[in-house]
Amino acid sequence: MKNMLDDEAAGTAALLFEVGTLKLTPRTGWLHAQVRHPESIAEHSHRVSLISAILAALEGADPGRAALMGTLHDTQESRLGDISHVGKAYVKTVKNEQVTADQTSTAAPVVATMIGDAVAEYEAQETPESRVAKDADKLECLLQALEYQRAGNQNVQAWVDSSRAALKTAAALQIADAAMNMTGLEWRQ
Amino acid sequence: MKNMLDDEAAGTAALLFEVGTLKLTPRTGWLHAQVRHPESIAEHSHRVSLISAILAALEGADPGRAALMGTLHDTQESRLGDISHVGKAYVKTVKNEQVTADQTSTAAPVVATMIGDAVAEYEAQETPESRVAKDADKLECLLQALEYQRAGNQNVQAWVDSSRAALKTAAALQIADAAMNMTGLEWRQ
Amino acid sequence: MKNMLDDEAAGTAALLFEVGTLKLTPRTGWLHAQVRHPESIAEHSHRVSLISAILAALEGADPGRAALMGTLHDTQESRLGDISHVGKAYVKTVKNEQVTADQTSTAAPVVATMIGDAVAEYEAQETPESRVAKDADKLECLLQALEYQRAGNQNVQAWVDSSRAALKTAAALQIADAAMNMTGLEWRQ
Amino acid sequence: MKNMLDDEAAGTAALLFEVGTLKLTPRTGWLHAQVRHPESIAEHSHRVSLISAILAALEGADPGRAALMGTLHDTQESRLGDISHVGKAYVKTVKNEQVTADQTSTAAPVVATMIGDAVAEYEAQETPESRVAKDADKLECLLQALEYQRAGNQNVQAWVDSSRAALKTAAALQIADAAMNMTGLEWRQ
Amino acid sequence: MKNMLDDEAAGTAALLFEVGTLKLTPRTGWLHAQVRHPESIAEHSHRVSLISAILAALEGADPGRAALMGTLHDTQESRLGDISHVGKAYVKTVKNEQVTADQTSTAAPVVATMIGDAVAEYEAQETPESRVAKDADKLECLLQALEYQRAGNQNVQAWVDSSRAALKTAAALQIADAAMNMTGLEWRQ
Amino acid sequence: MKNMLDDEAAGTAALLFEVGTLKLTPRTGWLHAQVRHPESIAEHSHRVSLISAILAALEGADPGRAALMGTLHDTQESRLGDISHVGKAYVKTVKNEQVTADQTSTAAPVVATMIGDAVAEYEAQETPESRVAKDADKLECLLQALEYQRAGNQNVQAWVDSSRAALKTAAALQIADAAMNMTGLEWRQ
Repeated sequence: MKNMLDDEAAGTAALLFEVGTLKLTPRTGWLHAQVRHPESIAEHSHRVSLISAILAALEGADPGRAALMGTLHDTQESRLGDISHVGKAYVKTVKNEQVTADQTSTAAPVVATMIGDAVAEYEAQETPESRVAKDADKLECLLQALEYQRAGNQNVQAWVDSSRAALKTAAALQIADAAMNMTGLEWRQ
Repeated sequence: MKNMLDDEAAGTAALLFEVGTLKLTPRTGWLHAQVRHPESIAEHSHRVSLISAILAALEGADPGRAALMGTLHDTQESRLGDISHVGKAYVKTVKNEQVTADQTSTAAPVVATMIGDAVAEYEAQETPESRVAKDADKLECLLQALEYQRAGNQNVQAWVDSSRAALKTAAALQIADAAMNMTGLEWRQ
Repeated sequence: MKNMLDDEAAGTAALLFEVGTLKLTPRTGWLHAQVRHPESIAEHSHRVSLISAILAALEGADPGRAALMGTLHDTQESRLGDISHVGKAYVKTVKNEQVTADQTSTAAPVVATMIGDAVAEYEAQETPESRVAKDADKLECLLQALEYQRAGNQNVQAWVDSSRAALKTAAALQIADAAMNMTGLEWRQ
Repeated sequence: MKNMLDDEAAGTAALLFEVGTLKLTPRTGWLHAQVRHPESIAEHSHRVSLISAILAALEGADPGRAALMGTLHDTQESRLGDISHVGKAYVKTVKNEQVTADQTSTAAPVVATMIGDAVAEYEAQETPESRVAKDADKLECLLQALEYQRAGNQNVQAWVDSSRAALKTAAALQIADAAMNMTGLEWRQ
Repeated sequence: MKNMLDDEAAGTAALLFEVGTLKLTPRTGWLHAQVRHPESIAEHSHRVSLISAILAALEGADPGRAALMGTLHDTQESRLGDISHVGKAYVKTVKNEQVTADQTSTAAPVVATMIGDAVAEYEAQETPESRVAKDADKLECLLQALEYQRAGNQNVQAWVDSSRAALKTAAALQIADAAMNMTGLEWRQ
Repeated sequence: MKNMLDDEAAGTAALLFEVGTLKLTPRTGWLHAQVRHPESIAEHSHRVSLISAILAALEGADPGRAALMGTLHDTQESRLGDISHVGKAYVKTVKNEQVTADQTSTAAPVVATMIGDAVAEYEAQETPESRVAKDADKLECLLQALEYQRAGNQNVQAWVDSSRAALKTAAALQIADAAMNMTGLEWRQ
């Protein structure tokens, strides 16, 4: 490869600093459920990425492509915030694809294209990889709700239920049902 | 695809609960630098995954494959912990590949194979995708060190320096050098 | 007074539970400045309320009325979230008055009216009390930025500057300028 | 208005820095109930201010005056700390009015008078506004106890009970009883 | 030994639950210096215990006796709270010995005696072990202030200075002066 | 006593900075049980020190010597980390005595000897004081597990059970059984 221009390198670094704020930004729904210091968007997205790859493997899709979409699926929230279930009735946002275009506008063009394509594919929901990544988003939320429940929180059953109801792939449903019948500590034995 | 066996679904869920503990586990080095409540391993890994894809795009490798390795690269730490720089002189661990094999031993076989292959490729460091994922691990650490520095911490210059010194790809070096000359707030303008 | 209807009492309690989530919700801007676990919207609003009363006393307005507006000024954010400086280019919301109307729609009518009137007055910015409450919002942000600066954060000068530039009353400006020349520990002597 | 003297502006700013420490100071009782990182005194006081205004509206008193007393009611705790239920047997403090006098001694005189009068009125408990503000303090504690309970904590029933027993106004009792029969998530529907 | 009575075992357990709240209780001074989530009283006391033993070894006193006093020196604060520098002008407390007597009143008598004797010795400040434990309290505070300073906080020089000024033993002074000339990261090399 | 050499004072300070990191380091097991921001190693060790002294008093051993061992018993974890129950199958460490020797190698010789002797005695488990300190470690874990349970966590029964099963002294067992039949709030009455 040839080197990036200095401005492209700076634009790419700026994108990474922006995405770094997702480490600090809590997922809004849990705050409404009285979870103090809940997971960050970055923490959620990390397990979404892994689940995306796993569902892809189970559904015969490309794990790497799915993992990338899982990693990217909430990156627009550094600008939009994590708009809650309630907020959706009050807030209108531009499309995620447009936010991504702005976020990557000063990055190296090959980076902007790579990210823009993956985000567009995820938002279109027409490929198997994008579909498992969306299911991964929901399954991750279900798992986290179960974890908060077992840590004591009695407010999150609605998150378990709505997440499960949104699952579309057979693999995600099977894992969800298994998870609901476990303690979450099985791996320690 | 055909359905998983019930035991395989449970084994896969157990793996996901295990990886979920990385949301709660701090990166050890920052504790030594007097950062209270530092980033979790999951938070680090999320940006590593994104950086892996970006470096892959810049270096002509497969972004999805690299992102997957970024997501997976520290998943063994749910068992091993995050052994510090100092700890390495005192602690011996089994190989990451073996930990991964145990972590996935009850998951669906196609999942175990997918993860095992990606981990083996990362550890072998013989493909472009594995090499950019390793650089992404170091570059992410450098960015986080800069972020802690600008948040006030005066102990982390050694993390900046050692991370930069470990970078191998031209793209990672360019981004690192750009980042060191920025405030990290450029994206907000 | 006569008793509330049971439904009105429940609607009033629901409003209070909703406002309680502001204890858990961080102010977004500080996350972008790399402050981990920053102040909540409730913490900000508490000092805004006090500053509103103080500015009212200094400007010859009604301290109680101003304090009430300070307490209420961000209560819509339980639904809207705290939309950041950057987010404003991407997000459109309904008016605060409408959010307040929905938040209080099941509360006792006298409560809904009292809150709705105060919010409308604050948003209209036509009375001295509403003007000092708005200045209080800005002055509070300036004080918090100074506090984060002295706790080490090097990213928040822009918050100091933009807050100061937004101040309109002479009293707020005098206090801001005094604060910028203090350590913040004077009261301990 | 005429300008403050520079010393008065500095004294007023010092007061605001002092009150800012209430953002960081936890309410002691919750620590005894094993709540890690509980609400701050500022967070408590913010909802007390709102409840004060609501109870005033319901009881035919002045919401603004009540809100101001709610905002101020624990401001002495920057000096006294939040002395616990148990601590009261071991600790003697000067009167709140005296602490307030010291806290405001270098502030602008009109500020000192405004705050001193409101604190004196609150402590005397002879006006309707001061009475609803005191009830608001108790009702807020009851709501927070319910919130901690639903977040899992099994130690806080005594806080629910003692807070309810201390309520004096019909409006506060009605809201308390409604709250005890709700989940706290009703507003999200 | 013969068994405790059941009531004595319960009283001893109650004492341990009480002391457990010191894990959750922050040291007040740091809150005033704008440290969010500072060390707990238990964390402070742990290093005080170690320093006490070290100073004892250096000063020719009994390390175990000194360590015990270090562990106990702030245990009264579960009842009294950690009264700040400023608070001392406003708050009067019963003597620590009396608090300890109450805390241990239902514990096994041999436990009450052991703890009561150690607390009385510490408060009397007449033995070498009690003197090094008091110096350990101050030296620990100095070290923590240095750690906060290097983590960015610019408010804590007064804590460094006042702690150093309070040191009485040559050993503590030597360690303090060495610490002030170090980065705190030397042990990692 | 004669003064330390400057290098010895610096080495002693370095040891204290090292031990200070235990304030920031969480106990690993609780992370696996979904406790976010659990106790630090320092917090655990503080109560272990107190329990050690109490068990010593009850078992006719030296409370000071036991307290010192309690304070020291996990100090190696600044280098080794807190290796979890699961991790023990994957990780091998050098002996604690060797870690301690390295930690104290630049401290004043009398300090190194004092600490080395106490650690060696604790690890050998041949004296009454070392045996009660080990029981204190287990009893402290049991009490903390009960505290997390009552704060809502449903994952920690295994920690209660395994800690109780490991107790060896009659006094520790009596206290454990009493604690299991209490709410933990008895001391507040």
